[in-house]
Parts: sequence; C-alpha cells; structure tokens
Amino acid sequence: MSMITWPVPTPDLPDGVHAPLADAARAAAAAYGVARAQYARKELAEVVDTGADGTPTMRVDALVEGAILESVSRNRVNLLSEEVGFVDHGSAITLVIDPMDGSANAAMGVPLSCFAGAVVRDGVATEALTLWLDTGRTWWALADEPTPYRTTGRTTVDGSSIAMLRPKDNSMSSWLRVANRVDRVRVLSTTCLEAALVAEGSMDAFVDPGSDTHRIMDLAAAMVTLPSAGGVVLDARGRPLEFDLDLSRRWSGIAAATRHLADKLAEIVTEAG
Amino acid sequence: MSMITWPVPTPDLPDGVHAPLADAARAAAAAYGVARAQYARKELAEVVDTGADGTPTMRVDALVEGAILESVSRNRVNLLSEEVGFVDHGSAITLVIDPMDGSANAAMGVPLSCFAGAVVRDGVATEALTLWLDTGRTWWALADEPTPYRTTGRTTVDGSSIAMLRPKDNSMSSWLRVANRVDRVRVLSTTCLEAALVAEGSMDAFVDPGSDTHRIMDLAAAMVTLPSAGGVVLDARGRPLEFDLDLSRRWSGIAAATRHLADKLAEIVTEAG
Repeated sequence: MSMITWPVPTPDLPDGVHAPLADAARAAAAAYGVARAQYARKELAEVVDTGADGTPTMRVDALVEGAILESVSRNRVNLLSEEVGFVDHGSAITLVIDPMDGSANAAMGVPLSCFAGAVVRDGVATEALTLWLDTGRTWWALADEPTPYRTTGRTTVDGSSIAMLRPKDNSMSSWLRVANRVDRVRVLSTTCLEAALVAEGSMDAFVDPGSDTHRIMDLAAAMVTLPSAGGVVLDARGRPLEFDLDLSRRWSGIAAATRHLADKLAEIVTEAG
Repeated sequence: MSMITWPVPTPDLPDGVHAPLADAARAAAAAYGVARAQYARKELAEVVDTGADGTPTMRVDALVEGAILESVSRNRVNLLSEEVGFVDHGSAITLVIDPMDGSANAAMGVPLSCFAGAVVRDGVATEALTLWLDTGRTWWALADEPTPYRTTGRTTVDGSSIAMLRPKDNSMSSWLRVANRVDRVRVLSTTCLEAALVAEGSMDAFVDPGSDTHRIMDLAAAMVTLPSAGGVVLDARGRPLEFDLDLSRRWSGIAAATRHLADKLAEIVTEAG
C-alpha cells in the first residue's frame, strides 16, 4: 500500500497566538504527521463516519479532529468543528476550526492542505490562524489590526489572477463565466490556503462560483484574515456570513483583494446563466 | 511594492544525481531566492524579453535561466532551455531544462513552481530531476530503473483524481469533457510539479486537454520520471514525444499512472467536440 513519505513539519507559530488556538494547530500538525506515517493513502481516505455537517468523514479527518478535541478539552474552550459539530466546555471562547481543509488532497498526498481556525469570544471573532500543514507556513491575523502581509489591492476582474473551487454540477456555467473573464485561474482544492494566498497578495481572489459548498468553518479564518490584510470575504449571493452553530448553512465564499473586486466577481457568478 | 517574503530553501539533492544537473538545480534555487529577495512581485513578472520558444520572458525567468547558463558553462555541457534555446558547448551531453516551470506562480508568490531537467546523452534521456523550489522537495529518476515512489496504478477515468492545464480558448470544450468524467480536478499551473505528483502516486494523471501548450522542456523530466515510476507520458493527439532543437513544436502532454488511463484520457480530449 502506498504511503505518503514526506514529513509534516512541526509548525513554528508566531509569538502571541492565542494559546488554545496555537495548541490546536500544533495538535493538528502532529496528528497529521502520525497519520501519514501509520496509514497508506487509501486508508487515510477511507470514509469512517458522517460528520455533524452531513458530509463524509475520512479517516484523516477523524484522526486530526480527534487530536483537536483533546486539545480543546485540555484548554477548556468550546469548539465548533466539521465532524463533531459544537462542543461546549462552558467557555466564553469558541474555536471555530476546519481541522483538515483540503482533506482529499491530504489523504492522496497532494501537498495542499491546511489547519484553519478562528477565536470567537462572545460571538465576535478576534483572531485567526491558518497553517499550511505540508510546509509549516502560517498566516496569523488579529481582527481590526493590519497584518504585515497585504492583498494585491486589485479592483478589476480583467487581468486578475484567481483561484476557484473546482466546477461542480451546480456551478459549471458560472465557473466558466468567471474563468473566461480572468487572466489566470487555478484550482488548488483547499479554500483556506487559497484564501491565505489572497491575503498575502499572491493571488487576487478565491471564488466559489455559486456551488454553495462553504460551511462557516471553511470561511472563519478568512473572515478575520482578509479584512486585516486589506481585503474582504463575502458570499456570492449576498447572504450574511455569520458564526452560527447550524452546520447545515452553506455559502459561496469569495475572498478578494478589494471589496470592488469581490462585488464584480459576485456579479459574474450570479448573472442569469 | 509587494515582496514575496518566504525563503527559497537550499535543496537537499539525493546522492548520485548527475553533477551538472545537480549544479543547475542548485543554481536555479539560489537565483530564485535572490530574485525574490531583490524584486517585488510586479518586477519579477515584468516581461524583459522574448524567449527562443517565442513566449514572453519574465524577469524571474531570465534571472533563473541566467544562473543555469553560468552553471552549464562551468560544467561544459550543452543546454536546451526555454528562453535561450540551444547552447552548444561541444558535449555529448545536453541538459534539457525548464528553468522555472510555473513562472506565473513564481512571480506572483503562489508557492507552486519547479526546476525540471533531464540529461540527454547522444539523443537518449538517461535521468531526470524535478525540484519544487518553494519546499526543496525533489523527485529523481534514472531511465529504465524503478523509482522508490510509484504511481497509483489506476486504469479508469471514472473515480480518478487528476490535474489539468487551465482551460484556454482552444481547449475549453475538451477541458469540460474531462472535468465531467473524473472524480476530482485541480489546476496547479505547474506542469512539472503536477507530473511529479502523478509519479509519486498523489494524483492519477495530469492532462493538457488539447491546448498544445507543452514544449519539450515542459515534458522532458516527466518523460523519464513517469515510466520509471510505473506510469507513462504521451501526447493527447498521438504525436511522438522527441528531444528536438526545434522549439516551435508543441504537444498536449498527458502524464498518467498507467498507459490505459492515459489512452482513455487522450480519447476524451480528442473526441469530436
């Protein structure tokens, strides 16, 4: 059976990251490293459960989320996560976490998957951390404080370089409309990493072209990070993005360098096909 | 102006790599690191010339290829490369190199770009090295010797997980035909890295769906690496893949886990639209 032989580095987190969030990130990286050393690709991808969000849980998801559950339990904070849903430890603080963004990549060995989490205190997000598990690179942001990295500042769709969610049955025509308007399109299959690349100015935008795939955990870190980096996150159909325990809610997230670019992309997504 | 702040690691190459090829790879990594430290994204992307293959040369391409030119000159081997074309040092050995695969990524800061090179002795390719510049990961292969990493062995398009070249005006309908048949599609915008991920079993195939974008430098390393890993590289339209000094030739490369999968993908690409 085929193993992923590359190591998962121990992340070198910036000083000052909210301690329970940092602990959860380190736990995720360690658990993913152990999972890759113990299980072959097919075993990592095996569906072992159905998550609280109604989507299949792969073994790699379960192992990484299990480590995060132990971490929040040690640290006595609440957790809102993909597979387990809401875990109440009676804290004013809830970590909203996507334990393994890009699970399909993570299970196959495509080196594009992330831990992404936001700290929500009494319903208000205060900071976020995105960790690219394969390299240990992190993007940290405090709400309402400018990050050292900045978006590109682009306002026009023409000439833009973006990433999109892969086209799905319900988004094929809008996927094509967007692809035909931008200068360059990529599909990395990891929303949280793609949003971080928009925040740091390496791409102009990331778009779910209307497939309504995103849950709040997929967007939580970006909702803090993008504004602090000069950009914006919104829903292509204009629905408010809210921290909500109802994991059946879905959005078509757009993370963009500027509000103007996000609005223009949303217009193209929602044009009558 | 916006700089790419992540470092480019010094690659840790496997023992035994053909010395001039290893030297060229190290030179490329060092030059890309210096370029990122000296120039902002827009400067890296600035078109400074037209390459021997007729495509625009960005500053980042020119700087990295310049370092490779010095390397082959020191090592007295010939070079076939994207911007400079054929450089004859009177050797029986020619390095066929894509100095900066995924240039657009490399200039923007999307961490998906490669050095890829093959050693061709008297017209026969003997080994290849692909180096993911952002992480230092390498894939080395000797012609006709099994590599430690293996392809997935998949033979069916149904259920497959692939990468494709981004859709272009001349490949939109075939891009969609393939996307609709596979289980999962990605677009990383770096052919050489995508081919390496197919070789190591992290994806089932990489496909140019008929846009005829590939030059021999884009495919040279994969043409050695894939067969040694159990896979195959072929042209979607069945044209022979040849080491040729004529840089106007183009192919639509398919790198796949098995011959059967490659043939099926080629069939879908070339179906009457």
